[in-house]
Amino acid sequence: MSYFSDPGNLCLFLQLELDDAIRRLHRVVGNAVVDDDRYVGGGTGSTQLFQAVLFALSSPTILTLSPSVSSPLPLSTLHCFWILEKKHGNMGMSSFLNHVMSQPPDSPLSGSKFDSYPEETEFLHSGLYNWAGDAYSFDKDGAYVELVTSPNNPDGMIREAVVNREGGKLIHELAYYWPQYTPITGKADNDIMLFTFSKATGHAGSRIGWAICKDKEVADKMIKYIELSSIGVSKEAQLRAAKILDVITEDCADSGPDKEDNFFEYGHRLMSDRWEKVREVVKRNGVFSLPKYTRDFCTFKGKDTDSSPAFAWLKSKDGLDCDNLLREFKIVTRGGTNFGVDSDYTRISMLSQDDEFNLFLERLAAIKGSINGNY
Amino acid sequence: MSYFSDPGNLCLFLQLELDDAIRRLHRVVGNAVVDDDRYVGGGTGSTQLFQAVLFALSSPTILTLSPSVSSPLPLSTLHCFWILEKKHGNMGMSSFLNHVMSQPPDSPLSGSKFDSYPEETEFLHSGLYNWAGDAYSFDKDGAYVELVTSPNNPDGMIREAVVNREGGKLIHELAYYWPQYTPITGKADNDIMLFTFSKATGHAGSRIGWAICKDKEVADKMIKYIELSSIGVSKEAQLRAAKILDVITEDCADSGPDKEDNFFEYGHRLMSDRWEKVREVVKRNGVFSLPKYTRDFCTFKGKDTDSSPAFAWLKSKDGLDCDNLLREFKIVTRGGTNFGVDSDYTRISMLSQDDEFNLFLERLAAIKGSINGNY
Repeated sequence: MSYFSDPGNLCLFLQLELDDAIRRLHRVVGNAVVDDDRYVGGGTGSTQLFQAVLFALSSPTILTLSPSVSSPLPLSTLHCFWILEKKHGNMGMSSFLNHVMSQPPDSPLSGSKFDSYPEETEFLHSGLYNWAGDAYSFDKDGAYVELVTSPNNPDGMIREAVVNREGGKLIHELAYYWPQYTPITGKADNDIMLFTFSKATGHAGSRIGWAICKDKEVADKMIKYIELSSIGVSKEAQLRAAKILDVITEDCADSGPDKEDNFFEYGHRLMSDRWEKVREVVKRNGVFSLPKYTRDFCTFKGKDTDSSPAFAWLKSKDGLDCDNLLREFKIVTRGGTNFGVDSDYTRISMLSQDDEFNLFLERLAAIKGSINGNY
Repeated sequence: MSYFSDPGNLCLFLQLELDDAIRRLHRVVGNAVVDDDRYVGGGTGSTQLFQAVLFALSSPTILTLSPSVSSPLPLSTLHCFWILEKKHGNMGMSSFLNHVMSQPPDSPLSGSKFDSYPEETEFLHSGLYNWAGDAYSFDKDGAYVELVTSPNNPDGMIREAVVNREGGKLIHELAYYWPQYTPITGKADNDIMLFTFSKATGHAGSRIGWAICKDKEVADKMIKYIELSSIGVSKEAQLRAAKILDVITEDCADSGPDKEDNFFEYGHRLMSDRWEKVREVVKRNGVFSLPKYTRDFCTFKGKDTDSSPAFAWLKSKDGLDCDNLLREFKIVTRGGTNFGVDSDYTRISMLSQDDEFNLFLERLAAIKGSINGNY
């Protein structure tokens, strides 16, 4: 079994079966443009692809290519890069690029760090890019890359780019833009979009993610990254993912008279049911609040639907340390400080097994009575 | 299907089945020490693991750990690191570590760059490490990491560390240390050893590699790298690899009276046969030379055996560009300059399909007659 999939295909490491399956699924769901002029590339989860995009948008090898090839960064920035390199030898390359994250002005999440993205960006101390923090407060000149995560993790909100300046490149991480989590309001048509099998269907252990991008050069460089970091993506995982996505696509395309809920409708019903229960408990015990989402028309379901995000972003109304408070009641969550906000916020997974979720509800419901005594 | 395999296991991302299968196979082959105090970690091929080791041996997070934990680098070096950082801010971290490769003095390979390793080391311009070239000519002070590839790619030679200085850490890449390629002369017992499914059994497309290491802290940091770069390794690939390795182990352990060649004996017979044919053609056409290997006692086969490496490292006796010469005869190879040596060397895969290999022999045999006229 060779490293390569199809030497004729742009992405040597993506099985044609998976490329086809990804495009078919997006077409039937209507959540992203996957026309024939778009490049689809596979990665070991969207985690690897995120780093592949950073490399693609910042690596200086562009200078060795023909000037007619569209450049991922304005020439002035590349020029700046080489000036820095000359000045400090090998040591002067780290600050020419600023990676910022997207955050709208009036959100309580301002300053959020999107969990693992800063660490994924910084851990190798790359000389090609560095994490520049909150996009809303980003005010440096020159080239930058803005990461837009929509729906956002942890708060489930729909996000758009906020810096909107000359010299900027956008990465849209759309992992949760599927009908079980949020209304599909149109086909996303961004320059670089990241999706993952993990969030689309729940198969996190397969480590399959994909990028859809418009620019051939960006796609080429992402492939170069995948080659250098792991010489491709497991074929077993790709073939299994292709089969599963195909089955889901067929299920969604089937509109026979006796058709029951399709995969995403079923998922959305389960998620809505869980959200209703959590909101009910939160309302009853009176010590927490949850984000409110706008009801919207879902083109996939053909009707107005509510958001039912993968995480509940819980806030303590009294400004208590929400993660600590819940731990007292044997509920393990991920506190707001992990996302760069205050400890009165915490993130709770809405995707646990039924038993676990029901136990969570039970323990959450028990907090009301105790809190007056204990806190 | 979750990201994680077994929360109780040190390596959250390695399936227990695969850990067991790897240890069982090494025990039956006798090519590496896999006692219970050794840590086995999985990666997306040994490519990802190589980078995980670089991170593990050079990342400064050691400073946040307890001083009693054994350090992957001498304290003076870490101190040096921080001095550099203070001096140049974020920009001064790239040259404190020197990664060298292993190369014995009198080899024609002196200066070889081991193909993709330099690019894999340098492509992100990491501030943690940099490629320092040929180990034989390495004369800098301070901490370093030496990469020993044995048997070596491209020349199939057995290698040992050559720098042997205070402050050095060794990575042993033993991808080809299996009985089909080379006599097994003992259980390798190095601090950090890398193996890969790709070379052990030919399943390159699965992207499964493993590291065996003695130090828990190195293992922990490698896991951290795997987490940050891809949140683990495909479970489909791991489970399939575990099954295949188990079948091979059972095959090797079976010593019944009617037992035919086991997997590795069969592989070695095929490889020996190919080598005999190539040597015959090379001898007959008189324009090339091939490396000579020492016959050695193979503990796995219980008898003296010859090496039959995965690549033929062909040299033009007349100092011609060997890769170009072969291309004239429609033989595609990888020229010596890719490995940092002169163009009179070239690397030819000995692992192609039968049809392809026979065609190669046919075309190679045709060179003798033409070369006097054409070159």
